Amino acid sequence: MLNVSHSGLSASRLGYAKEKMSENGPWGKVLTIDTMNPTVKKVEYAVRGPIVQRAVQIEKELREGVKKPFAEVIKANIGDAHAMGQQPITFFRQVLAMCSYPELLNDSSFPEDAKHRARRILQSCGGSSLGAYSASQGIDCVLQDVARYIERRDGGIPCNPENVYLTTGASDGIMTMLKLLVCGEDEGRTGVMISIPQYPLYSAALAELGAVQINYYLNEDKCWSMDLSELKRSLKEARRHCNPRALCIINPGNPTGQVQSRDCIEDVIRFAAKERLLLMADEVYQDNVYAEGCEFHSFKKVLFEMGPEYSDSVELVSFHSTSKCYMGECGFRGGYMEIINMDPEVKAQLNKLVSVRLCPPVPGQALMGLVVNPPQPGEPSYINFIKERSATLSALAEKARLTEEILNTVPGISCNPVQGAMYSFPSISLSKAAIEEAAENDQAPDMFYCMRLLEETGICLVPGSGFGQKDGTYHFRMTILPPMDKLKVLLTKVKEFHQRFTNQYS
Amino acid sequence: MLNVSHSGLSASRLGYAKEKMSENGPWGKVLTIDTMNPTVKKVEYAVRGPIVQRAVQIEKELREGVKKPFAEVIKANIGDAHAMGQQPITFFRQVLAMCSYPELLNDSSFPEDAKHRARRILQSCGGSSLGAYSASQGIDCVLQDVARYIERRDGGIPCNPENVYLTTGASDGIMTMLKLLVCGEDEGRTGVMISIPQYPLYSAALAELGAVQINYYLNEDKCWSMDLSELKRSLKEARRHCNPRALCIINPGNPTGQVQSRDCIEDVIRFAAKERLLLMADEVYQDNVYAEGCEFHSFKKVLFEMGPEYSDSVELVSFHSTSKCYMGECGFRGGYMEIINMDPEVKAQLNKLVSVRLCPPVPGQALMGLVVNPPQPGEPSYINFIKERSATLSALAEKARLTEEILNTVPGISCNPVQGAMYSFPSISLSKAAIEEAAENDQAPDMFYCMRLLEETGICLVPGSGFGQKDGTYHFRMTILPPMDKLKVLLTKVKEFHQRFTNQYS
Repeated sequence: MLNVSHSGLSASRLGYAKEKMSENGPWGKVLTIDTMNPTVKKVEYAVRGPIVQRAVQIEKELREGVKKPFAEVIKANIGDAHAMGQQPITFFRQVLAMCSYPELLNDSSFPEDAKHRARRILQSCGGSSLGAYSASQGIDCVLQDVARYIERRDGGIPCNPENVYLTTGASDGIMTMLKLLVCGEDEGRTGVMISIPQYPLYSAALAELGAVQINYYLNEDKCWSMDLSELKRSLKEARRHCNPRALCIINPGNPTGQVQSRDCIEDVIRFAAKERLLLMADEVYQDNVYAEGCEFHSFKKVLFEMGPEYSDSVELVSFHSTSKCYMGECGFRGGYMEIINMDPEVKAQLNKLVSVRLCPPVPGQALMGLVVNPPQPGEPSYINFIKERSATLSALAEKARLTEEILNTVPGISCNPVQGAMYSFPSISLSKAAIEEAAENDQAPDMFYCMRLLEETGICLVPGSGFGQKDGTYHFRMTILPPMDKLKVLLTKVKEFHQRFTNQYS
Repeated sequence: MLNVSHSGLSASRLGYAKEKMSENGPWGKVLTIDTMNPTVKKVEYAVRGPIVQRAVQIEKELREGVKKPFAEVIKANIGDAHAMGQQPITFFRQVLAMCSYPELLNDSSFPEDAKHRARRILQSCGGSSLGAYSASQGIDCVLQDVARYIERRDGGIPCNPENVYLTTGASDGIMTMLKLLVCGEDEGRTGVMISIPQYPLYSAALAELGAVQINYYLNEDKCWSMDLSELKRSLKEARRHCNPRALCIINPGNPTGQVQSRDCIEDVIRFAAKERLLLMADEVYQDNVYAEGCEFHSFKKVLFEMGPEYSDSVELVSFHSTSKCYMGECGFRGGYMEIINMDPEVKAQLNKLVSVRLCPPVPGQALMGLVVNPPQPGEPSYINFIKERSATLSALAEKARLTEEILNTVPGISCNPVQGAMYSFPSISLSKAAIEEAAENDQAPDMFYCMRLLEETGICLVPGSGFGQKDGTYHFRMTILPPMDKLKVLLTKVKEFHQRFTNQYS
């Protein structure tokens, strides 16, 4: 693979400065690990990290007939509902099929409300085609439907469609907002507060952008709630070495499955107002609330109910997506963000920035439009829609309950209630011997644990170290998405493995 | 909109350093034009710039009954075929509809080859659903189909699916590759050579990433061809102030519509090999070749035919997309890139980087898979597919010819042959008086011209200054996509306007 095409050409004839030669070697690659973007190298993303790569490899080995102590890999590493067998909502897919192939609008087997939605979306597309670029902010009728959805959800607090941006999944919106925020050098560098444990998109995006990650710890003893004193501590420390400008919240929580109380959200808003932090509320699990007494409160609603003192000033961006809730349509990469109190000049820059990528995928936009404008009472698809949605959400609630219950029967595993979202994040006790053996393997202790679990049982979880955790504590994240029969197998195997592992390293 | 919630709190109690207060004012917004990411502010994107915003406004005024000297806005500013009335390929949309709503696999009105493709794609999706995340690199069967397509296209030169990455349109791939490349500070900063005129995604991406844009000028006198001496000049100058590491080529050309000769491509490859530049070949118009004697040569094919001296060493990335050619499916944001001779360690970093965004939109991946694996002779959809594809491509060829012909009848407009792609980029003579009036309006002369054209005729073109051009020359970019009847109207109106404008400012 060496470049041998330069024989006879001296380095000076090629015009290379001496130091460039010594850096890369004159005949080596242009792009090497030493000459690539250093911020990219710092990026980590556990949800698709080494353990998942090994799981894929094991699946391949199984297909090739390699003998293992298990027949299949059960993946509980990623919030990918359809991959775990969850069925899509019929109505959504009917409309998408008609939008893709409008001949189907003449097919009498499709219900009228689905046809109506398909026509409405297509009329809002250039040339009545999903294949045309949309406006960079999104298809007009979807922006309007999102705004009306937000108003309904928030008890009538107004939402201007001009403040809504459709996105390529929530990740894209979060990345775009963080990109707008980053500036400064050294101690003036933008810092962004994120919860620990966190969803690693945040740390990855901050690393990629060269911003400073400011950790605030969720309180595991209080069901992973946010703690005002911890926010204060974290901010105070961060101010010594960077310029903290934003506070990210994931509610309901990923990877920790908590649902924030209204009081807690008010505290956070007051804190952000006082400390002048832009709030980024990742609310993609807004329909995933299972626990008795828990309820989803949008940051926007709470902000506006706190009165103009807050609602006229606090800068807030809220993110939603087609990927979670009862839809689980991750593959379409649909999402939106609503911006509140954004400076108009910054908004103009945001418009420009999103226009460079032309537009979010239009099928994902259409799907987002359906999620916020589903069948209504009296429409032909309503009953079936409600049936499908309820079945999915109640199955998730049941799995959340079961996961907590079974994990808490295992000595050495302690699991908070899975109040919402799609994850449990139990802590695991690891002995000194286990920690030492992990160190010998050059692995974080919970990575060592999860890797062993995978090799022995075929169960793929993500170690807590990929999300961040308090020093000296160990966790894993496990989705509650596998079908009930597999989830039971999974939980039993985790239980048995943990006992075996504990005995081995006691 | 002022934050009034801090009354009574002193700045010191809030912990603000004095300089921070003076920067933003203590009660203002967190995120302002002065405190946002400075690199984002430098981004420009003409294709959706002020002229297009004004066109959208005029359309609104027309709907509201405002009287104008025209009845409709004709947009020739963006390569958006479906928005201009081009019909999608039936086969592609049938398969997408079945993938969206698999019940349709039982519908006897769909042809068997379409069903076969839909089943193949769904089997490669998690949970047999477009709604599952794919692997970050893309759906396995699509990666394989892309590899086979490249092999067919390039006369059997092997393509390893592991070197193929599906993307969210070509823009996403280009951005990702540039992101990998950027490093260094000051004179060591990564420089990237781009053609002038260029497609402004490149300048926008380089601005956003803080890389150095290195301009090389295409030779308008030789039908916008690349010129080796100009490449050398450009590189030599750039080496004084940055570290040039990559050379971007758009072939067939955007905005200039040229098709590169094989000899020229060989020259460029030799230049890149000698000067150690990574090649980025934007080949999204690979099916859009109209002129007699012109042919598309992929950079990869030429590279490999030049022998191992080159094919074993030159780093090349080639980009393709569902958005152009005969498909014009921009809204799906489908695309791929093939990487050749990439350092394995860098490839591992690339894999990590794309995994943070989870995956490209799966419907767009499916569509990319269909584009590279369309109906074959003997399959039921073949004849109709060929008929639709040929009709679109021959209409484009006819429009390319007509555009050149009519524009060249206008004194003061000079238009190179539209050999390929979807654009003409004629030069326009502007008088001193016109240039002075533009300056009084604080506009580039060709922006002034295009804005006047829009206001007087409703025709929306993009000024050459948005793409870059030699100092003292003026151009506009116009797509050849409007339907034939509208294209004729457009060309006649441009002709009349140019004569009027020339007379007025003579």
